[in-house]
Parts: sequence; structure tokens; C-alpha cells
Amino acid sequence: MVVRSTATGHELTAPVFYARGRNERPLAYIQANVHGAELQGNAAILALFDSLEKENLRGSAILVPRVNPVGANQQVGDYVAGVYDFHSGSNFNRGYLFLTGPSRAAITASYVDVDSFAVANLSSSLSEIRDGFRDVLRAALAAARAEGEKYGLDARVEFALAIQEMAVEADVVMDLHTGDRAPRYLYAPEGAYAASRAFGIPFVLEIPARFGGALDEASFVPWHDLAEAFIRNGRTDVPRMVDAFTVELGSMNMFSLSQGTEDARRIASALRYYGVLEGEPDNPSGRIVSCSVNDYRSINSPIGGLVDPVVAPGTPVRKGDLLARMVDPARCRSTPPKLEDAVVEVRAPEDGVVLLFHAASSIPRGVRLVSMMTNLRSL
Amino acid sequence: MVVRSTATGHELTAPVFYARGRNERPLAYIQANVHGAELQGNAAILALFDSLEKENLRGSAILVPRVNPVGANQQVGDYVAGVYDFHSGSNFNRGYLFLTGPSRAAITASYVDVDSFAVANLSSSLSEIRDGFRDVLRAALAAARAEGEKYGLDARVEFALAIQEMAVEADVVMDLHTGDRAPRYLYAPEGAYAASRAFGIPFVLEIPARFGGALDEASFVPWHDLAEAFIRNGRTDVPRMVDAFTVELGSMNMFSLSQGTEDARRIASALRYYGVLEGEPDNPSGRIVSCSVNDYRSINSPIGGLVDPVVAPGTPVRKGDLLARMVDPARCRSTPPKLEDAVVEVRAPEDGVVLLFHAASSIPRGVRLVSMMTNLRSL
Amino acid sequence: MVVRSTATGHELTAPVFYARGRNERPLAYIQANVHGAELQGNAAILALFDSLEKENLRGSAILVPRVNPVGANQQVGDYVAGVYDFHSGSNFNRGYLFLTGPSRAAITASYVDVDSFAVANLSSSLSEIRDGFRDVLRAALAAARAEGEKYGLDARVEFALAIQEMAVEADVVMDLHTGDRAPRYLYAPEGAYAASRAFGIPFVLEIPARFGGALDEASFVPWHDLAEAFIRNGRTDVPRMVDAFTVELGSMNMFSLSQGTEDARRIASALRYYGVLEGEPDNPSGRIVSCSVNDYRSINSPIGGLVDPVVAPGTPVRKGDLLARMVDPARCRSTPPKLEDAVVEVRAPEDGVVLLFHAASSIPRGVRLVSMMTNLRSL
Amino acid sequence: MVVRSTATGHELTAPVFYARGRNERPLAYIQANVHGAELQGNAAILALFDSLEKENLRGSAILVPRVNPVGANQQVGDYVAGVYDFHSGSNFNRGYLFLTGPSRAAITASYVDVDSFAVANLSSSLSEIRDGFRDVLRAALAAARAEGEKYGLDARVEFALAIQEMAVEADVVMDLHTGDRAPRYLYAPEGAYAASRAFGIPFVLEIPARFGGALDEASFVPWHDLAEAFIRNGRTDVPRMVDAFTVELGSMNMFSLSQGTEDARRIASALRYYGVLEGEPDNPSGRIVSCSVNDYRSINSPIGGLVDPVVAPGTPVRKGDLLARMVDPARCRSTPPKLEDAVVEVRAPEDGVVLLFHAASSIPRGVRLVSMMTNLRSL
Repeated sequence: MVVRSTATGHELTAPVFYARGRNERPLAYIQANVHGAELQGNAAILALFDSLEKENLRGSAILVPRVNPVGANQQVGDYVAGVYDFHSGSNFNRGYLFLTGPSRAAITASYVDVDSFAVANLSSSLSEIRDGFRDVLRAALAAARAEGEKYGLDARVEFALAIQEMAVEADVVMDLHTGDRAPRYLYAPEGAYAASRAFGIPFVLEIPARFGGALDEASFVPWHDLAEAFIRNGRTDVPRMVDAFTVELGSMNMFSLSQGTEDARRIASALRYYGVLEGEPDNPSGRIVSCSVNDYRSINSPIGGLVDPVVAPGTPVRKGDLLARMVDPARCRSTPPKLEDAVVEVRAPEDGVVLLFHAASSIPRGVRLVSMMTNLRSL
Repeated sequence: MVVRSTATGHELTAPVFYARGRNERPLAYIQANVHGAELQGNAAILALFDSLEKENLRGSAILVPRVNPVGANQQVGDYVAGVYDFHSGSNFNRGYLFLTGPSRAAITASYVDVDSFAVANLSSSLSEIRDGFRDVLRAALAAARAEGEKYGLDARVEFALAIQEMAVEADVVMDLHTGDRAPRYLYAPEGAYAASRAFGIPFVLEIPARFGGALDEASFVPWHDLAEAFIRNGRTDVPRMVDAFTVELGSMNMFSLSQGTEDARRIASALRYYGVLEGEPDNPSGRIVSCSVNDYRSINSPIGGLVDPVVAPGTPVRKGDLLARMVDPARCRSTPPKLEDAVVEVRAPEDGVVLLFHAASSIPRGVRLVSMMTNLRSL
Repeated sequence: MVVRSTATGHELTAPVFYARGRNERPLAYIQANVHGAELQGNAAILALFDSLEKENLRGSAILVPRVNPVGANQQVGDYVAGVYDFHSGSNFNRGYLFLTGPSRAAITASYVDVDSFAVANLSSSLSEIRDGFRDVLRAALAAARAEGEKYGLDARVEFALAIQEMAVEADVVMDLHTGDRAPRYLYAPEGAYAASRAFGIPFVLEIPARFGGALDEASFVPWHDLAEAFIRNGRTDVPRMVDAFTVELGSMNMFSLSQGTEDARRIASALRYYGVLEGEPDNPSGRIVSCSVNDYRSINSPIGGLVDPVVAPGTPVRKGDLLARMVDPARCRSTPPKLEDAVVEVRAPEDGVVLLFHAASSIPRGVRLVSMMTNLRSL
Repeated sequence: MVVRSTATGHELTAPVFYARGRNERPLAYIQANVHGAELQGNAAILALFDSLEKENLRGSAILVPRVNPVGANQQVGDYVAGVYDFHSGSNFNRGYLFLTGPSRAAITASYVDVDSFAVANLSSSLSEIRDGFRDVLRAALAAARAEGEKYGLDARVEFALAIQEMAVEADVVMDLHTGDRAPRYLYAPEGAYAASRAFGIPFVLEIPARFGGALDEASFVPWHDLAEAFIRNGRTDVPRMVDAFTVELGSMNMFSLSQGTEDARRIASALRYYGVLEGEPDNPSGRIVSCSVNDYRSINSPIGGLVDPVVAPGTPVRKGDLLARMVDPARCRSTPPKLEDAVVEVRAPEDGVVLLFHAASSIPRGVRLVSMMTNLRSL
């Protein structure tokens, strides 16, 4: 799959692997590393190579590690700056096309009217609906590609299409990311409780069916919109037929093959839930807490300075608990200087779970220092 | 004005100059260099220092050169990468708060309901409306700042507020930018013909009253929305009371004090139109062509390679005219190699004016190579 | 201390703290964070603020945390790219002036001829030699600054001078760095065994008296050269009067105040050795191994890919031991794909201690993957 | 030619073209774009494709446009930061191996002792000397490659070897660069007057036979050292048998096929001088001035700010002439503000020719603002 053609004419490609089981469907699409420094998903996919062989593959899977060589090679100095495209400033996971609604990346030709489709398919079977709607989505992506021809296809759209043309085929989509400094956690469609539990990941952020540009949204929201359209038009037996997850596998810049085996185990359990693998999903080994993404809040750094985290990511906290110390030695103005003058404490503004610290230990003021789940419930 | 506090605790500031005339109003707000490598507006403002002194200053002006030290100092190697914030990927001119509508940067507390205001002010005088609505906008910005306190103010919002808190005071706003490689051109609110003519700039892009995040939009759209709300509520004599322009002063990375004198002359003419300076605006010296921003189209590079422009920015072209050659030596595959094999021609897909070439002469595929005005009319 | 003046005219400064003890000398100069992402030294200095107060300060100390705001703010995306100056490509720790020899950054006026000084001071007392030679070095730095005036002082020289003008005053210099992913280790002048032991840091790299541009070299080599010159001219009782160390405090991008207390304890022990603090240095708690920097070898990555470290930094290994796996999923070419095809093993080319892994877990081919001490001895 | 293997396993290659004439020798090696944003040499090479066909090719030529895809793709924002390697900070034109002397990039195995060779070849014919010494250089490069195998070849050495393995074969080497903002000029070996005149380029910087890491030096200095060794050993008829030039073709980020035709004409004239093409070189159309690189002096910016150049690059100036204005609006502190307060004038510290301005119009303090030739003579 060609992801970008560089200024020197080199084609940057991602390797695409097809694992064909006894049936073509259910089909899973699993990719990793769309953000350049979020590496662990590659280990998970490599471990899946082995586990899919060993397990009983009932459906099929498309596996794409290293899906974004553009981001992965944006290395300046030691580290990779892989979230935003150096050419366009775009977050690589915010430019997907929203086929059933107006999108920032919108291309008129690619708009799909779910109500028209529902009205025309009120008496179709569920499998006719599934196949027919997928045909319509496929046609919308083709139209977007065609529309790009007169004025040249924008590199961001080319990137989105390369991925969406594969993902649109799938019944379940998993986009493997990592947090900055974080435990495993999951973005799941609101209400997908059983599926979320199948992953056995302890923290779940529930996303409503609205569009912010990410692949999970681009994959499941059109099918949600379709189900809603059927309801609006009087037919209530059409479920959302595609689910999609952003799976956060620990911290940025971490890569471990042995952890990858663990991660693959979690994903395989979810694939059993979706019938891609034979068998039953695992029971989660511990409590799973969830909250709405609307209750997932970021605390911005109150000063520019060094970050000394006080709690580990994944820790429950109470309002007022100390989360981190921000440290700026230039704040020491007494003689002799005192360490304590350099410190500004950051405390929890409410109860919740600290999920994530900024990847860097030195940050400007006003940057996401900590992200917290609030208004928790058990899943 | 503090624009950013760095990780080492240094405050990056922009210099703010007040030119107080005989009256406080009309008040102009003029800033330059919000994108780090777009320099010429600074020369224009410096030249205005002298011309405001010489001309008869009836109203007042706030002048802010070098408004964005963050962007201006994003220098990697020789050049400045000043459009997108290295920390957040955000375009520095897309994060302003949209006070009368839902915005990406939206902060609930800062929403202003124009219909409520219109209904409450159906019998107010125009000057009561102007002062009252400005009070409401000011309060909305204050609310946004206050709302940031619980979780810390996001650096992007801090940047937007620092500028909008000044710009909201103004009757006319001018944001001085440059194109990539381009002549002088102007983004003007749709219908602001006389004002646009006062600048005497030969190319005008007309922007509808919708919001994409830029300062000109953030400044005039709320007042447009207010006027529309009055119309909806039965009062038709309330005009849009604030105008805002993005003034593009030539090419990126160009800086000339002598050209700045010319640019200041154009701005002074517009300030006379708005009554900030005494006297009549100049008559434009030549034809002014305009089109809607919806008809301002970008041609993306068909291959990655070197760019050999064939027409100068600002040139009218016909459909099919050769605009540029894209050159990739690796395409030469015959022996002996031939220059012509390296070349992919880029031709105009329709009639129009070539306004802009990419700043770099070496670009990947799918990047904005040329931007063209189409469906032109004379202003 | 002004370190840089930006393009927008902002002066980037480093905070300088003087801890004055009962006597002016011995004087220690301690700085941290000359490389932008090497943060832990700041925690050590802050902890020293408190411990110097509590301990009996016999001499004095200059403490400069955050010495390089230029490097610390070179943040692109999440991480800091703080080793090389974005403007000049220069390693911030390779541009110091070599006053007693030819240097890359050489400025003719600043050359100090140690033999002339030795000949003229054959019958001086040791303290006259120490004071006299420091005067000469000081004058050489002043000459370098003066010479810059005709053509403007180069920013790299300005940076070097700002630091060297302070460090030249000291009897012992400590430059606090970190490795990439590493334990605590120490660069010490060849032969400075007792001093090295005083730090109690388990790994020591011994540097000969040659010049590569680093601050430790720039600080002690002139005094070494002086001692050698006296010997050449027949006087053998003049020791090297200044020592300098690069102290590596763990991994890049790590910052911990509590670890800083530990680090300060190690530094305080060394300061007791040098008589800056009253009392005896601690005995090292474990074995200290050392090797020459000439036996400190880097293994470059054999392929571009992901890095899965197998041994922890600080681990002794035998020739042939597996150190890391490099992983490139695109190497899987069989159907079905196999994890093992993606892996290239990296094994120890000889016996030694693995000291350091690259900071990033995704690197191109030919980049320092692992650094190893070889030809070890106990100190 | 593979130049780099990325972290995602993609091989970045440069296209290599061989133009075989009637004889294998004399052989020219011509490359372009080793610095990522120095583009015009590519146009020259493409134009040479055509002119070598038309002219009578007596010897042969290796032509490598786009020799450095690593540098060319280091694009951040609009522009290319292509001088320093993002991974190592290294200037791409400073890492070549110095085979006959100690070099920074030195690899012990690759050292060639010219005196031993001279002594062993005192009675050899000139052509035996030429072929024999080239064999020795070739072997030294092979040894460097072999030595890299135990610990993995450093990416910088891999880059240098890929180029030097081709360039070592040549009788004349041309490395096509550009200045920042500059006219055409030439770096030529000291004393190569006739060859320099053959290029017809108006400004020549003469480089002595010492090594700073650039390709021209790496190519001709070993042959210079050989000639000197013969003289030291009593044989005076052995000339320097290889010449090498850095040809600066105008300004950074400029690319023009039509200018490329002009540039190819200049290079073809030099190729006639060296017998690669049949016929006589052109007579220069105007005066050629030269100076030693030791008299090529840089003026560093006295303040951080905007740059308003006053003279065009290539202009002769007298001591005290105004060269540029540096402009920082924040320096305006009076009320009302005055343009003149923002300006710091930069004047010529001596007579000479202004050859080059910084590529950017906004720079920090202490950065190369202007470079001037001084102590000129006519060639």
C-alpha cells in the first residue's frame, strides 16, 4: 500500500498481510502505528501472526503494521515526532473521510445519504443491507478518489483513502495506538459493552457516534447513522453492523515483543467475540472502569517547566490529591535558593483515574500534562 | 502581551503599540506575522508608525508587529517553519474562538446567542447596539478565560485570547500575512467592495460569513451574525458593524522596508475609508479582480519532485496553459537519459489567475503546488 | 546569564546560583541540561540547594540548572530534540574553546602557550602558578570575546563563552548529563581514581587529555597540558590543578525529584573529596568498573526497524550474548507471515557491559543502537 | 545507489547515470543536491544529459542528481532543512573520509601513507602512479567498509562511502551546491587558475590543500598530498592528478530548467578543459575575482531580527558601506514609536565583495548574516 510519494520520488509503503480463514467473513481490519512513535501495536500484530496460525481462524483478517511510514520517519534528533504531518500540521488520525456527514476533509462527491438508502431498503434482508451499504460506502470512496483527479489528489486524502479503502471492507476495525505515558486502555463505541469486556482492558472511554476525524469513528459512525436512519424510517431490527476500536497499548516509544504476546491475547479474545476466531472470549481478569470521552478531561500545565509525576498512570485519585509537581528552577529567587520555591503542585480537580501523563518531562505552560477519567462506572 | 510561556519559564511576548488619535474610535487593530515566516507585514506596520504621525489621525490604532514569537522562532536549519505550532500541529491562524457559533476551539461558556441579543435590543440605537454587543463579546472572552482556570488554560486558547481580547475592541481588523510565492492580495468579507477597493490591491478573495478559525472570520462573523439576527427578528437597519481583512503582502520570507512604505500607503488608504485617518481613500491604480474563496482552487502536485514555475504569480491563464513543470530525475530511464523524461507538465484545469506557488521548489506528491482564482469578476 | 538572543529579540537566559561558603575556594562549577532532553541534573542541583545548606560549606559553588534554554525548547511534537542546535547542527556539548591547543572553534587570539607559561614560572609557587595560569585563561576568553567584535560574535562562541567564563573560575567542574537509556555513569579524567570513587557511580569511562569539544575536556585539559609543560621543562611537582567530570544521571527525558536527592548525595560526596564540603567522601557501596573511552564501543543498528532490548542497561554480557532484537515487519515475506522473519538479532561482538540503548525504539540503519564498555577493570 | 535505510526499512536511493564516451577516461564525477534545499545543480545535470549527447564526448561522466534523498526530504512546514542530518546533526558535506590524513570521520584501516607510496613508486611512470594510487585509495575505502562490519556501519560513513566509492574513480569531481542567497561562485583548489577560468564563473574562492570534510577536499587533497610526497622524496614531475570543485549555482530553494541550460554550458566548458569533452573551453565573458577562503569572512547578525538587505549579493563594497538593516520592532520604546529605533545598521568592516546573505529574512543574533570576499585579486 503506497502511503506517500516523497519529493525525491520515493514511494513510502506499508506492508499489508491477509490472514485468510475458513470464511472470508467476518473480516477484521487491524492496523498499527498510524502515529509515528506509537509502536507497541506492531508487536501485537506480529504476535497475532503466530496466534492466528495456532487458533482456529473462522473469518479473515487484514493486518497492517507500520501503516504510516511518513510519521514513523519524522525523526528529529533522538525521538520521533509522529502525530502531526510535518507538511500539513494535520494529526494523522484526524483526516479520515466522514462518508455519511459533513466533514472537514469533506469531498462533496463522497457524501452518502443514509435516509435514502434506508427508504430504498426497508424490505431488504439484513445481509442485503450489509452488502448493499458497503457497496455504497465503497462507491463513495471511489468517488472521492475520482474527484481528486482534476486538481490532483491531496496527500492527506490519499493517505485517508489508502486506509479507508481497506477498512471499509471490515466488520470490525481495530486501530492500535498508545497513550503518551499510560496503561492499556480502549476507545469503544458507546454501548459496545460486551465487546469492550472481551478485550479485558481495564480502562474504557466510550465515544458517542459523532465525528472528529479518527479511523474508529470513520469506520463505525456511518453504520450507526444507517441504523438510526432505519429507525427514523420505521424499521428497528437493523443494528449497527460494524464496530471499531482505538486500542491504546501502553506508552509511546515503548516496544516489546513479549508484551506483544499479551496484547495479541487481548485482541484474539475480542476477535473471538466477533466470530473472526472460533471460540468464546476470555472473561476479564479484573474490574473494568469506563467513562464517556466527554468526561475524559485534560489538565493543562500551570507553568512551563519540568514534570515530576507523583502518581502512576492508571491510579484512582480523589479530588485534591497531588498528581504531579511542575518544577522551574528559575522560580527560586531567595538567597540561599530553596528547592520548594521551584515547585508548583498540580492536584486533582475532581475524583477519577489518572490515565495519562505527557510523554515529555519538560513542557511549556498550557500543554496537556495529565488526562483523567471522571464520572466513572464499572463496565 | 504574553503569547507563550516556554518549558524553561521564559515568557514570549509581542510588542503592542497604541497610536491614539483625536478620538478613541474608530479603532483599527492591525497585527503582523502570526505565521512565523510571513514577515512583510512587520515592515508595513513600522512604516505606519511614520505615516500615522504624518497623516491626520482621527480615530486610533493598535499595532502589533511580530505578534507570534512562537512561530517566528520555529527555525529548523535555515528557514522558519511558522504555520503550524510544533507542540500541537495547529495552524496559528485557525484556533480563534467563534463566539456566536459552535467552533472547534469552542468553550461552552463563551457562546453568544445573537438572537437573544437582537430581541432584547430591538429598540436600541445603533450605537447602543454596537457598545452593548461588544460588551457581550468581551464578556464571552472573559468567560472563556475563566473556564480555563479549573483545568488550566490550553496554550492555544491562551494565544487566541491574547489576540482576540485586543481585536474585539476594534471597528476594523487587519491581519497582515503573505502568500507562499505570491503578489499582494486580499481576503475580504463578501460584499465589502468599497473597502476592498480602498486597499488598491489587485486581487481579492471574498469570504462568506462562515467560520474556519481565522482571525478575520473570528472578528467580523459575530457582527454579521448579529445583523442577520436583527433581520430575522424584523429590524433591517443594523449593518455589520465590524469588518476584518487578511492582507497578503507578497511572498513568504521576504522583508523589505522600502516595500513596507508602499504597503503602509495601501493600508492608510483603507484606514481613511474607515475614518481612522482623515481624508478620502485613494482610487485604485488598476483593475481589481475578485472571486469567491469557493472558487479559489488549489492544484496538488501530480508527482513528488522539483518545481519549475512557468508563469509568474499574478498571471491570468487560460484552461490548458502550462503553469509549471514538476521534475524528477529518477524518471529518466532510457540510455542515454533525456531531460524530457524527467518532466511532468502541470496545466491549468480552467481559466483564471495563478495567484500562488508553493514556497518550496521541492515538494512531495499531493501538496498544494499552485493556487488559482477562477470565475473572476472585476470589483 | 544570556545564552541566546532569538530572532524576535527575546533573550534566553539561564538562572545562576552562587552558594558562598566560608571560603571562596575551592570553587565548584556545576551545570545541568546542556542537552535539552537530559533533565535529571536539574533535580540533582535543586536537591543540592538543600544539602549545601545542611552540610558544612567550606568552599563555594556555582550552580546552573537549565543552562541551555535553546536546547530545552527545541520541542517538536511531544519530545525535545535537544542535542544539536537547530540553527547550526552543532552538538551543544562540542563547541567549547580549547585554549591550549588548536580547536575547531579556534579563535587565534585565544591561544595559550603552556610552555612559555611554564618557562616563565619555573620558580613560582604552586599557588602563584594556579592563580597566574587562571589569569591567562581568563584573558584568553576575553580575547576571544573581543575578537568576535569586528565581525560579530558567532552564537556558538557566545554560548561557549557564557559558560566557560564561569567554569574557568572553578577548581572542579561537573557537567550533569544523562545517557539515552542508561544507568548512572561517569566520564572522568584518566587517572582520577580517588575522585571517581568518591562519586560512588558504578560505571566510569576514563578520558585521556585530548580535546573533542566537551566542557569537561575544555576545563581540565589546559591544566593537564600545563602540568605536562612543567615536566617538559624540568619541574615535576606541578599537578593538574583542575578536574572536570561529565556525570550521566540515568536516562534522557526522565525527571524525578526523589532520585535527585540520591544524585545530590553522590555529588556531595565528590564535593567533600575536593574540599568544597567539609568531611570525608562516602565509600562506594559496590564495585566500580571502568574502561577507557577508547574501549567504549557503539554497535550500529544492522537494519532500520523497531528495537526490542533484551538486556537492561548496566548489564555485563559475554561475546555472543543476545543484546536486542531489531524488528521490521516488512521482512515477513512468507504466507502466512511469521514473526521470526521480522527479527534481526544483535549480539555482543565481545565481552563487556551494555551501558546504553538508543533513546528511541524505532531507528534507521547505522545508528548507535547499543554502547558497550569493553576491556573492563575494577576501579 | 542506496543512501539510507529508514526506520521503516525503506531504502532511499539516488539515481546514477553513466555517460560513456569514446574513452573511459578522463572521467568526471558530477553530483548535485547533497544539501537538501540546494536544488539548481539538478537542473544543470538534467541539461547536461542533453548537451553531452550533442557535444563530442571524448571521456566519460558519472552524473548523480538528487544525491541525498535524506536531506531533500527533511521538510518541516514549507521549507527543507537539508544541511544537517536530523539524526546526527552532521553537515552532509562534512563527513567524507580523509584517506591520506587524520580525519574526524577517521577509520584507522583506511589510512593511506603517501610517503610509502611515493618511495615505492619513485621510478614508476605517471600513468602507473595514477592507476596505482587510485588502487590504493579504492582499497582504503574498501577497508573502511569492512571495518564497519564488526560493530555495524555508521549511517554517516555509509553515506560518505556510497559517494566516495564513485568519486574516487574520477579525474575531476564537481559537487553542485548553491549559496544561501548568492550569485554563481566557485570553490577551486588553490592554483587551479586555468580550470577555474574555464567555468567562467565570476567569483572564485581558493581552497588550500587541507581537510574540513567536504567532498572537493576529500577528492583532491589525497592527490595533492601524493604530489607533495614525491617532491619530499626527490621527484618533482608528479602533478596533482585529480581536481575537485564545489560549484555554487545561485540561491537555495531556486530551481529553473532554463537557468540549468546556462549552468550546463559553464560546466561543459570546464569539461572541455579537462578533456572529457572535445574542444576548447570558453573564454570567460567578464572579469573573474578570487580570494583565499581564509579571506572569505562572515559577518554575524548583531541583533536577532528581520533582515533588510541593502546591496545585492555579488556587489563590490567599500569599508563602511551599508550592507543590511537588522530590524527588531520591540526596540521601539518611544511614544509615538519611530521606525528608525527598530533598525541596527550593518556596515562592511573592510573592502570586498558581498557574496551571500542568509537564506532567511528573520534570524537570531550571532548567525551568519553576510559573507564577504576580501583581499580580492583578478584571476
